[in-house]
Amino acid sequence: MSHRKLFLLPGDGIGPEITAELEKVIAFMNTKADAGFEIEKGLVGGSAYDAHGVAISDDDMARAMAADAVILAAVGGPKWDSVPYDVRPEAGLLRLRKDMQLFANLRPAICYSALAASSSLKPELVEGLDILIVRELTGGVYFGEPKEVIDLENGQQRAIDTQVYDTYEIERIAAVAFELARTRDNRVCSMDKRNVMKSGLFWNQVVNRVHDEKYKDVTLSHMLADAGGMQLVRAPKQFDVIVTDNLFGDLLSDVAAMLTGSLGMLPSASLGAEDPATGKRKAMYEPVHGSAPDIAGQGIANPLAMIASFAMCLRYSFNMIKEAEALDAAIAQVLEDGLRTGDIMAEGCRKVGTAAMGDAVVDAF
Amino acid sequence: MSHRKLFLLPGDGIGPEITAELEKVIAFMNTKADAGFEIEKGLVGGSAYDAHGVAISDDDMARAMAADAVILAAVGGPKWDSVPYDVRPEAGLLRLRKDMQLFANLRPAICYSALAASSSLKPELVEGLDILIVRELTGGVYFGEPKEVIDLENGQQRAIDTQVYDTYEIERIAAVAFELARTRDNRVCSMDKRNVMKSGLFWNQVVNRVHDEKYKDVTLSHMLADAGGMQLVRAPKQFDVIVTDNLFGDLLSDVAAMLTGSLGMLPSASLGAEDPATGKRKAMYEPVHGSAPDIAGQGIANPLAMIASFAMCLRYSFNMIKEAEALDAAIAQVLEDGLRTGDIMAEGCRKVGTAAMGDAVVDAF
Ligand SMILES: CC(C)[C@H](C(=O)O)[C@@H](O)C(=O)O
Ligand SMILES: CC(C)[C@H](C(=O)O)[C@@H](O)C(=O)O
Repeated sequence: MSHRKLFLLPGDGIGPEITAELEKVIAFMNTKADAGFEIEKGLVGGSAYDAHGVAISDDDMARAMAADAVILAAVGGPKWDSVPYDVRPEAGLLRLRKDMQLFANLRPAICYSALAASSSLKPELVEGLDILIVRELTGGVYFGEPKEVIDLENGQQRAIDTQVYDTYEIERIAAVAFELARTRDNRVCSMDKRNVMKSGLFWNQVVNRVHDEKYKDVTLSHMLADAGGMQLVRAPKQFDVIVTDNLFGDLLSDVAAMLTGSLGMLPSASLGAEDPATGKRKAMYEPVHGSAPDIAGQGIANPLAMIASFAMCLRYSFNMIKEAEALDAAIAQVLEDGLRTGDIMAEGCRKVGTAAMGDAVVDAF
Repeated sequence: MSHRKLFLLPGDGIGPEITAELEKVIAFMNTKADAGFEIEKGLVGGSAYDAHGVAISDDDMARAMAADAVILAAVGGPKWDSVPYDVRPEAGLLRLRKDMQLFANLRPAICYSALAASSSLKPELVEGLDILIVRELTGGVYFGEPKEVIDLENGQQRAIDTQVYDTYEIERIAAVAFELARTRDNRVCSMDKRNVMKSGLFWNQVVNRVHDEKYKDVTLSHMLADAGGMQLVRAPKQFDVIVTDNLFGDLLSDVAAMLTGSLGMLPSASLGAEDPATGKRKAMYEPVHGSAPDIAGQGIANPLAMIASFAMCLRYSFNMIKEAEALDAAIAQVLEDGLRTGDIMAEGCRKVGTAAMGDAVVDAF
């Protein structure tokens, strides 16, 4: 029995409730399949601020670094809207990404056929949708310096953020996108604003070079990011893998997520580089949805994105492909069976709460 | 008869064809209503590059500055994909915006009821849609310095773009959004990424202050830009006026445009500040669509967005409200009558070319 160290960060809002359902899945794997998962838990976001006055403590940060995989539920809520900027809930998330060097954010936008009708798009446009957005996660305008507000001599103020990309940052995210494309439909579309941004032009050139040097077998296309947003809404199935920078990835992956009919369904993985010595990579898994403070504590939140994030964890951190596929199939099964939490409720289906949904996935697993 | 000086910039691709249809409308107004429009024409984008080696000549720039209104069709195309960065087609557009100080970009996303079925969204979500995106157009990452690619000592390169906003830039665009909201449903939603960007936090604060000082009667809400993209796809009719920065406005207005079912329908206005002495403001009007080089010269392009842009021109540059409404009504009429260019063709409608569509609008006007 191997030891697999998981560090769970339930965070805020509905985070603890959906984490509890994930723990059922993990316990089941330990009991039935001797999977050897060990769980530690920590605090991030508002809950960390309430306990320690920071968005994540150094101690929890160290435990995140030491774990085989981190699983974070969600952070934030109106309660912390006016805490100081440096310790706002999101700062915990950003520190985890940056300190663990999780540069590759994988955001699948998959439309479960049982849910196609609940998309705001016409069902035929999203039925069978399966795209993967590969978002650069540790660079760009999120972390570039200067990032400040200064007082000008004329009494005005000036706010500045800086978009910065070095060659290696684009090379490594492009490589991740091309590698993943090879396991799928072998097509990558790179999005940038090269007609306006120097970093966009540079992005475009580096992606082209990486492609020509090592991934000629993969079909590469380019789209301006604004046109990309449009095409996602117009005909999302045209895409296989999309690779883009941190800020565009933030917006475009949210648009893509919404196409599938429910944010409550979508997982994500944030990966670091492979350590050449151990073959391991740091990784964090999170649902794409937020902390939904409005429904927190009511037992009605949808735990499926959290559980699907763990399926990504099985796949990318532990190479447990069969188990990942079985867990994904269990999620699809409960949907086929007509079980629905409130956010995805539809006529003729059976409405269940968070715990019942978690139990159903375990049963179907 | 008053003299109204229009400067037309047909640009590239389908630009000249759709401009020809607009000229029919203008000629009609001059003949039938003695409107006194005077037309000059210039070159911008690839056509300017071919003629003068720049994206817009100083001479044409001066004529744009002297006109009462500039109307630009579209720029760009594969022919100019490898011209030097500073003289690429988009540089002409950006220079016009910057030199004329057109800081307020108005992008209505209106769904003509005759076209609701052609949206990729379910018709009930877009039928009657009428939102106005107010995009800041002369600041932010489009123009901030430094904007460069530098060589690092380690052999790597670094690309930098800078997002910069001064107090006054946010104040004036917020004021435009609030003023326009008062003529509509009196609601403004401001979008930013204040959880990540200092300029987003600053944007948020200044918009709040302008609201509290002068526009308390307008309902103001805030949304993170990524959530905003999502909400546009999920339930676009929740919005009235959206105000946002240059880059987010670029992406979000394209997403919003796509919701309406056709890019070929949507106009835009870019306005400068009102001159306190004359009460006049510099202005440029453009369709939202691009130059569509793939169908250029075939006489099949949709001229309606170009004509609708002129309706905005009548409204905002010449205060000819009745005429603007009549022109908008003429566009709606030809759609009701079942006339369609190829891009908006639907079953049971009559397919027409660019010229026939222009003629039909003049007839219905
Ligand atoms: C919470 C926020 C800082 C974060 C981001 O902007 O990256 C979120 O929107 C996301 O996409 O993970
Ligand atoms: C052509 C390009 C420079 C421009 C922009 O990015 O502003 C276009 O996308 C637009 O939205 O008007």
